[in-house]
Amino acid sequence: MIPDRLPQLDSIAAERAVRRLDRLTKPPGSLGRLERLAVELAAIQGESLPQVAPPAMLVFAADHGVAAERVSAFPQEVTAQMVANFTAGGAAINVFARQHAAHLEVIDVGVATPMPDDVARHPRLVNEKVRLGTANMLESDAMTRDEALQAMAAGARAAKRAAAAGCRCLIIGEMGIANTTASSALLAVLTGGPVAGLVGNGTGLDASGVAHKRSVIERALGARRPDRNDPLGTLAAVGGLEIAAMAGAFLGGAEQRLPLLVDGFIATVAALVARRLCPGLREYLIFGHRSQEPGHELALKALDARPLLDFGLRLGEGTGAALAFPLLDSACRLLSEMATFDDAGIGAGS
Amino acid sequence: MIPDRLPQLDSIAAERAVRRLDRLTKPPGSLGRLERLAVELAAIQGESLPQVAPPAMLVFAADHGVAAERVSAFPQEVTAQMVANFTAGGAAINVFARQHAAHLEVIDVGVATPMPDDVARHPRLVNEKVRLGTANMLESDAMTRDEALQAMAAGARAAKRAAAAGCRCLIIGEMGIANTTASSALLAVLTGGPVAGLVGNGTGLDASGVAHKRSVIERALGARRPDRNDPLGTLAAVGGLEIAAMAGAFLGGAEQRLPLLVDGFIATVAALVARRLCPGLREYLIFGHRSQEPGHELALKALDARPLLDFGLRLGEGTGAALAFPLLDSACRLLSEMATFDDAGIGAGS
Repeated sequence: MIPDRLPQLDSIAAERAVRRLDRLTKPPGSLGRLERLAVELAAIQGESLPQVAPPAMLVFAADHGVAAERVSAFPQEVTAQMVANFTAGGAAINVFARQHAAHLEVIDVGVATPMPDDVARHPRLVNEKVRLGTANMLESDAMTRDEALQAMAAGARAAKRAAAAGCRCLIIGEMGIANTTASSALLAVLTGGPVAGLVGNGTGLDASGVAHKRSVIERALGARRPDRNDPLGTLAAVGGLEIAAMAGAFLGGAEQRLPLLVDGFIATVAALVARRLCPGLREYLIFGHRSQEPGHELALKALDARPLLDFGLRLGEGTGAALAFPLLDSACRLLSEMATFDDAGIGAGS
Repeated sequence: MIPDRLPQLDSIAAERAVRRLDRLTKPPGSLGRLERLAVELAAIQGESLPQVAPPAMLVFAADHGVAAERVSAFPQEVTAQMVANFTAGGAAINVFARQHAAHLEVIDVGVATPMPDDVARHPRLVNEKVRLGTANMLESDAMTRDEALQAMAAGARAAKRAAAAGCRCLIIGEMGIANTTASSALLAVLTGGPVAGLVGNGTGLDASGVAHKRSVIERALGARRPDRNDPLGTLAAVGGLEIAAMAGAFLGGAEQRLPLLVDGFIATVAALVARRLCPGLREYLIFGHRSQEPGHELALKALDARPLLDFGLRLGEGTGAALAFPLLDSACRLLSEMATFDDAGIGAGS
């Protein structure tokens, strides 16, 4: 399940992209970060003219036993309700999927609440339930190591389906009530940072709610004592099924040489877990946006990442990554569509 | 030519947009800046469900007499060559126009070099030549006040054509060798800031080139002595025909209640000139990106603006604004396409 190694970046394709960028009808380097992005995409795909359209949007959904501790502003049932909303096409990620002609798939790796038949059988929903939500991390490990691996395998399968369907990049998001709690716990272990600095209000807790959430995480970490040098064990102890699945999707996507557009706090923590399991992953990751959730800054720092957008989103679903997608598309189109100075008969700079 | 006043923003449409955003299937405020953008667009258009597609991309081109002082890395002929490239579809702005299904128009308000017939008669090119480039501001005023007003009128006509063609927002850009010199001179006068801090390398000068450019601007300001309380006189003395046309397009676009997506340094200086002429303009402006050119920071500050993107572009043509367009489109689509909690049968937060 966890690859021994990932394909190396293609330095020849990258070099060809660099040379082409310098011949396009613009002052050298004048498209700034867009040029660097074009070169990164060339290196990942192994194509001097990379292409990111159509994108796949993979939304992994699961529940969290720790929701019983009232660490979220929303009740657990909302996970299933939002899955229904994804199948009906009414959520924010659906809007962006239509805008960008994306292939959207919702993968249920552990939603606890039963779903009506029309939702359960919807072609956009893939049933990969590993278990009906994690256990409450205050009481026991959230899941077994084997269950974490099963969820990762479901994620990798989704990445492979996307590649087989002709998608050229992955936008990876999630839905899971209480998953900022699991992500904060994971991040605290993996970075060794204090819980206090990284816990935020998730989808809308007040100050006393945030203090309670922090206390739940601190007690869980005290009870579980995960080993920061064992990322899989940490994922099993305090993680989540959808977080494990996202980690698997990142690794599976990199194996397919797909650029991986990372969403906000939870997706970035999943990417961090995956990178700990397989260090070559980092170069496949492109970070869509900087979230309002305070832990995101720490997670980005641990990955030495500078996101494309700074819009203060805190929704998840993959929305921040989806919002950034057209920027990747622009970078690719410049490489393949712009005229060179020779084509256009324009004198270069003096 | 200069409107006495612009239409007031529609606070009722804005309030309706706010109320709808709070009923959509997401935690309140969780789409961050995108929500504020949606509300701004509603207020500008006077529609609770605003729409920015299709956009118009208006690229104003003209030459600058001060190019004779070798203040640019490129020779003056490149302005005409790039206009030919715009008509042929090979420039960066053409790539973005195709990506975003934009209506692209190139308006020649003063290109000095004659253009071949196939370019001059191209349907994408509008001939609004006021004169064959400005005069060298070291020797005389760049143009007369009447010529500045003529160029502004050409800009306003372009905005009106875009509105008549059904375009729902304006992306305003430029092409004009040496126009960072004119923009730096304008900005120094209008903000009273020292020339040293705001002159940059434009499209690629080296350090001695930047020092020379600064000296040219300082000498021009010493010779012309524009009055900072007379924005039109300043525009005539040290500005440019395309800068005047952009100022006119901003004002004309606001009269049509079109959201105005501002590009980089030169477009922002043009917006600043237009705002000095008609203060109500500010609320119609949305800033696409933060340019590498050092004066851009000062111009943004003078307009109290925070751009959507920070990508280090320094190309012009409207490219930085075009790159940001899908973000506006996303904001509009959220408002009109997302389900409400009631629609989706989802319980709101506890």
